[in-house]
Amino acid sequence: MATTANQIIHCKAAVSWEAGKPLVIEEVEVAPPQAMEVRIKILFTALCHTDVYFWEAKGQSPLFPRIFGHEAGGIVESVGEGVTELKPGDHVLPIFTGECKDCAHCKSEQSNMCELLRINTERGVMIEDGKSRFSIKGKPIYHFLGTSTFSEYTVVHSGCVAKINPSAPLDTVFVLSCGFCTGFGATVNVAKPPKGSTVAVFGLGAVGLAAAEGARFSGASRIIGVDVNPNKFEQGRKFGVTEFVNPKDYDKPVQEVLVEMTNGGVDRSIECTGNVQAMISAFESVHDGWGVAVLVGVPSKDDVFKTHPLNFLTERTLKGTFYGNFKPRTDIPLVVEKYMNKEIELEKFITHSVPFSDINTAFDLMLKGEGIRCLIRMEE
Amino acid sequence: MATTANQIIHCKAAVSWEAGKPLVIEEVEVAPPQAMEVRIKILFTALCHTDVYFWEAKGQSPLFPRIFGHEAGGIVESVGEGVTELKPGDHVLPIFTGECKDCAHCKSEQSNMCELLRINTERGVMIEDGKSRFSIKGKPIYHFLGTSTFSEYTVVHSGCVAKINPSAPLDTVFVLSCGFCTGFGATVNVAKPPKGSTVAVFGLGAVGLAAAEGARFSGASRIIGVDVNPNKFEQGRKFGVTEFVNPKDYDKPVQEVLVEMTNGGVDRSIECTGNVQAMISAFESVHDGWGVAVLVGVPSKDDVFKTHPLNFLTERTLKGTFYGNFKPRTDIPLVVEKYMNKEIELEKFITHSVPFSDINTAFDLMLKGEGIRCLIRMEE
Repeated sequence: MATTANQIIHCKAAVSWEAGKPLVIEEVEVAPPQAMEVRIKILFTALCHTDVYFWEAKGQSPLFPRIFGHEAGGIVESVGEGVTELKPGDHVLPIFTGECKDCAHCKSEQSNMCELLRINTERGVMIEDGKSRFSIKGKPIYHFLGTSTFSEYTVVHSGCVAKINPSAPLDTVFVLSCGFCTGFGATVNVAKPPKGSTVAVFGLGAVGLAAAEGARFSGASRIIGVDVNPNKFEQGRKFGVTEFVNPKDYDKPVQEVLVEMTNGGVDRSIECTGNVQAMISAFESVHDGWGVAVLVGVPSKDDVFKTHPLNFLTERTLKGTFYGNFKPRTDIPLVVEKYMNKEIELEKFITHSVPFSDINTAFDLMLKGEGIRCLIRMEE
Repeated sequence: MATTANQIIHCKAAVSWEAGKPLVIEEVEVAPPQAMEVRIKILFTALCHTDVYFWEAKGQSPLFPRIFGHEAGGIVESVGEGVTELKPGDHVLPIFTGECKDCAHCKSEQSNMCELLRINTERGVMIEDGKSRFSIKGKPIYHFLGTSTFSEYTVVHSGCVAKINPSAPLDTVFVLSCGFCTGFGATVNVAKPPKGSTVAVFGLGAVGLAAAEGARFSGASRIIGVDVNPNKFEQGRKFGVTEFVNPKDYDKPVQEVLVEMTNGGVDRSIECTGNVQAMISAFESVHDGWGVAVLVGVPSKDDVFKTHPLNFLTERTLKGTFYGNFKPRTDIPLVVEKYMNKEIELEKFITHSVPFSDINTAFDLMLKGEGIRCLIRMEE
């Protein structure tokens, strides 16, 4: 591999030319990594709702042509100037947010919202020089979330790369680079349910199921899945969900249903839909005195969270989280070890698998709400 | 004192006959304590905003004639059947909320919202038999908060009585039975500012000043007092407040002022006014990543707390507290010890002193916003 360092690499990438239109596999040029950057050979990737959201480009400024993708595993091909903690051959997960280890957030034990490398959905270029590393016949193609993993090779800031145990199977642990950690961390790092707790999870997509896995990992005794789609319930059982509530089955607000089911409220609730009404329900369904609700799902920009302030004064807590409060470089390698020690289960999240050439199938599956994660294999 | 046990005691009490009208010192009959109750000789008491709120009886169902008062110190005169942890002669603080030590809340490490003895502002009788222990010529007078300390003798449920160190000066530590602990606990038990933090306190009344005292106790390096009354600032300095912000001095929301003053937001904010706009400001003024806002002030019943849910997702926390999360019987004796060890300062809260016969002066002072606590001495 040493022969490609400092060279432009020509490889295949799935380019999104237009909002909502199928991706097109193109030959792209991938420039060498600049200062503090690494170039990664992607081996496995998957599609996440956030990719679809920005691909559909409803409600944000569209930025095309762009290479999407941010959940992936790969191997470092080469590193740019100043990169000392990564070297060619390292097994890595690129992460859509970073950890500079130098700002107030990185120095805080609580925060993972790095000032320098925090997620930026609007930016389509690298922060080093404001340029793209991707081009087709010299014309730049925009990056997405600093990761753009729908390409055989990509360039990522070294602060957004988790170096992991090389014996971990990349075709499984790649799920840690986004959805799994977001939900799992919301439970174990933020909600922190004591053993024997009752936990409600709103929304049983990948993130919600990972939140349920976090509740199982924490020893919760009741895990109540809340979803308007009853098809999610069967799948939920595999993830430790013990009871299901479909808000459509009731004439009263779902928080009242949960409060009745649990003699006063759940101990913890995790909101994974992004729907503001679900956020309010998740908060109002926790028990007074000790209940904690955690918001994970991303709201629309005009949403307003509303509740009576007495719901707080009766000793309820409302928190939000971003990427499950995991610090990408410090914490993700440790989550990989949890998988290696069989403390957490990841295989059950991967319900489909396609070669890179069929990447649009992953979009179809997600739009139809089928399965959880569709593994996209870069090498056929 | 043994001679009065099991007897009706005739003594003086300040009776509120009508909403908003001066109290009248009357001779009342105080019945002996029933099962699980104690009768207390009150030595020192004070007026708190909550007394005034229910005395004015705007916005609730008026309940008169009533004996107000809930911040006090005294000595047990006699105990009812089944009371084993208290005996005549014990120095005690009656508390407006209780601790049965048996319900889920009492068993939880987080909650102090006892199911059996939780504050009840509507009830004017004892829970044992639904009757009052006070009467005037046989006609019952209602209790308030289960404490009714504006009487030389009162009857309180034994679960609402903190037994304290008998060498503690009751004319000082009585402030722990309400205002001080509410504010101090909001900071030390709930907001928990790390050493060196920046803490904003909204509202510099007795509770807010106690919250500031909690911030000083916790080693906060900046304590920013927010109040619309600039007269509060001079007093605030004695309580460790280092900076002052009057929202009326600015054309923009006070949260923006605080965010600018603190390079991104305060580490902790404590809301002690009960004004819903101040609650929103307190929450929106905390730093992303780690900021925690704590609501203490009691809102009006139609208030709605509103904010953009992204303010949570960027890792801010909003909590509420009741009586500073202190458990009355377990924790208050330990706070008394903190005072005895000179870790906390209480004298500065007591700015005025009147004999019981002048109790209406305490109302005048509070309505004029003068001073913090006016000590009411039962024995002239």
